Amino acid sequence: MPTTTRIYNFSAGPAVLPLPVLEEAQRHLVSLPGVGMSVMEISHRSKTFEDLLNTAIEDIRALADVPANYRILMLQGGATLQFSMVPMNLLTPGASADYIDTGSWADKAIKEAKKVGPVNIAATTKTDGYTRIPRQEELRLTPGAAYVHITTNNTIEGTEWKTLPEVGEAPLVADTSSDMFSGPIDVGRFGLIYAGAQKNLGPSGVTLVIIREDLLARSVDSLPVMLNYRVHAENNSLYNTPNTFGIYILGLTVKWLRSLGGLPAIARINQRKAAKLYAEIDRTGFYRGTAQKESRSLMNVTFRLPSEELEKLFVKESTAAGLDGLKGHRAVGGMRASIYNAFPEDGVDALVEFMREFERRHG
Amino acid sequence: MPTTTRIYNFSAGPAVLPLPVLEEAQRHLVSLPGVGMSVMEISHRSKTFEDLLNTAIEDIRALADVPANYRILMLQGGATLQFSMVPMNLLTPGASADYIDTGSWADKAIKEAKKVGPVNIAATTKTDGYTRIPRQEELRLTPGAAYVHITTNNTIEGTEWKTLPEVGEAPLVADTSSDMFSGPIDVGRFGLIYAGAQKNLGPSGVTLVIIREDLLARSVDSLPVMLNYRVHAENNSLYNTPNTFGIYILGLTVKWLRSLGGLPAIARINQRKAAKLYAEIDRTGFYRGTAQKESRSLMNVTFRLPSEELEKLFVKESTAAGLDGLKGHRAVGGMRASIYNAFPEDGVDALVEFMREFERRHG
Repeated sequence: MPTTTRIYNFSAGPAVLPLPVLEEAQRHLVSLPGVGMSVMEISHRSKTFEDLLNTAIEDIRALADVPANYRILMLQGGATLQFSMVPMNLLTPGASADYIDTGSWADKAIKEAKKVGPVNIAATTKTDGYTRIPRQEELRLTPGAAYVHITTNNTIEGTEWKTLPEVGEAPLVADTSSDMFSGPIDVGRFGLIYAGAQKNLGPSGVTLVIIREDLLARSVDSLPVMLNYRVHAENNSLYNTPNTFGIYILGLTVKWLRSLGGLPAIARINQRKAAKLYAEIDRTGFYRGTAQKESRSLMNVTFRLPSEELEKLFVKESTAAGLDGLKGHRAVGGMRASIYNAFPEDGVDALVEFMREFERRHG
Repeated sequence: MPTTTRIYNFSAGPAVLPLPVLEEAQRHLVSLPGVGMSVMEISHRSKTFEDLLNTAIEDIRALADVPANYRILMLQGGATLQFSMVPMNLLTPGASADYIDTGSWADKAIKEAKKVGPVNIAATTKTDGYTRIPRQEELRLTPGAAYVHITTNNTIEGTEWKTLPEVGEAPLVADTSSDMFSGPIDVGRFGLIYAGAQKNLGPSGVTLVIIREDLLARSVDSLPVMLNYRVHAENNSLYNTPNTFGIYILGLTVKWLRSLGGLPAIARINQRKAAKLYAEIDRTGFYRGTAQKESRSLMNVTFRLPSEELEKLFVKESTAAGLDGLKGHRAVGGMRASIYNAFPEDGVDALVEFMREFERRHG
């Protein structure tokens, strides 16, 4: 067997996957038991693959208690293609869409929506450097909006919505790429949820979309067929060849989440991991969290050090210590520890220990 | 180690992959040597991944002798998304596009193009049941066309272009999904080439696009950013997170092709494999090839039996004998043996032997 020496991977995405998932995929990579082919080689029209796909969908439905009037789709193109598909499908003629601007990714979603139709910025925390999520009373929602778009977790800025906004009749649409299935989610509150898989769900190249069935009626035939939610729903994500291997790994990852005890269980683990890091950040003032406390993300913990020189040194020494991927996004600077579902708690402990030792030497 | 019992996989796609590629991917699946993470877990912005991507691109350039003024992109969404991206990017205002209709997939490309702008069907062999490729003198090309689109190999109908059409000044655009890198390709004859990876190049979820640089100027800023060739070219396919694992496998597959001796070598193997099957089909008249002889595909060998009852029996018995995926597409009926690059020659020999024995018992 190959060496399985592994480091602690704090990468923002593609990100760490559960070790049992990787090990199962490795065992069966050349030949799926009872099939005689790699999962990469089987037809997407075969019973074997349809069973894999449908099992993944059923496991997602059970994991997140997805109501029966929602369809679960596995698409391609990442959240970025969803930035276009959402308005192309849901922004009905004559209406406008409300977007809440909480960071770099929300801003990209807005830019793409504006190419399709009228967009109203219902709230933005840009003047606060995106260090927080807007409060309910700050939202200026448009009556009759086609939908309201939010970004539930802001990967770059390290913030997250702690409670969903009240948006009235308009369907709530959410980019959940960086916190999907990191804790319980009330799917019934949303019209559409999308998530690139490569943070909490699986490898890159698969996009999970959960859409309320009545919204499929908004998809018109003149859309490019690959960008039409209704076509994908009618074909159970098999209109064309999907990313079969990515769906297989996503399915294993969802099974792993269920085996842990589901979303309440993973939420407890994620809260504990994040609490350890934020406690260390707040302990002396040497480290400084960049997000306002009430908006702190459980997935992406962002912090600065007293100087950029110390930050460079921190990146260098932590990498050498087997703590990889801690350099923050250039938009925020400093450090970012991405601690998604599959990130092991002992890696958080190792980082806390490293932070203490680093402060002892340089504080 | 896991069992590696494998069957002969004649599936039209996703299809068989080279065994050495699968074995290397298996060895390193949990931890890439020297990296300490699975290839699925590393950031697409990391040096490790950029090296993987750039090596794959360089290997493709070397393998197919791609001229320096062509860009090599790795996108998502399969050929079906290319059916839309091609006209959205290349069909300039006021112009029309010429399409040559040689089968089901060409027809799908035409349907999507018509949603974008004016389309002229420069030739069709529909009245011949798509059993052949049109001759040069049948083409009614439009002067000043934005481009001319062909499907180099017709997976369902079992036909292929033996020589490229002369199309004058217009850029030739080709869907090469089912015969890419099955033999030498004169890239300089094309404006744009695209191919879903899941037949000859790797797993599903990656789309190879090779585009002549001057055509990038046609991509306007108002396009959805994920559908803009220029954006992908400017960002070396890293505008957003690509299918990192799929690109890794595609890279290994291209290396495997180079190790065999490149495209002339694989062409000889493919010709030999197809010749064996067509010789058996033509031997007595019990089997009947569905494509006209001068248009026969080297990748997808389609044939009928004397009755539908015998065809059902053939599927049943061949599957039981470890020859999987031989049932033809419902549009053509009968049998289809897809024998892409990675399909082993001994599998062709096994099928020929099975065909002889089947005829002996039922002929």
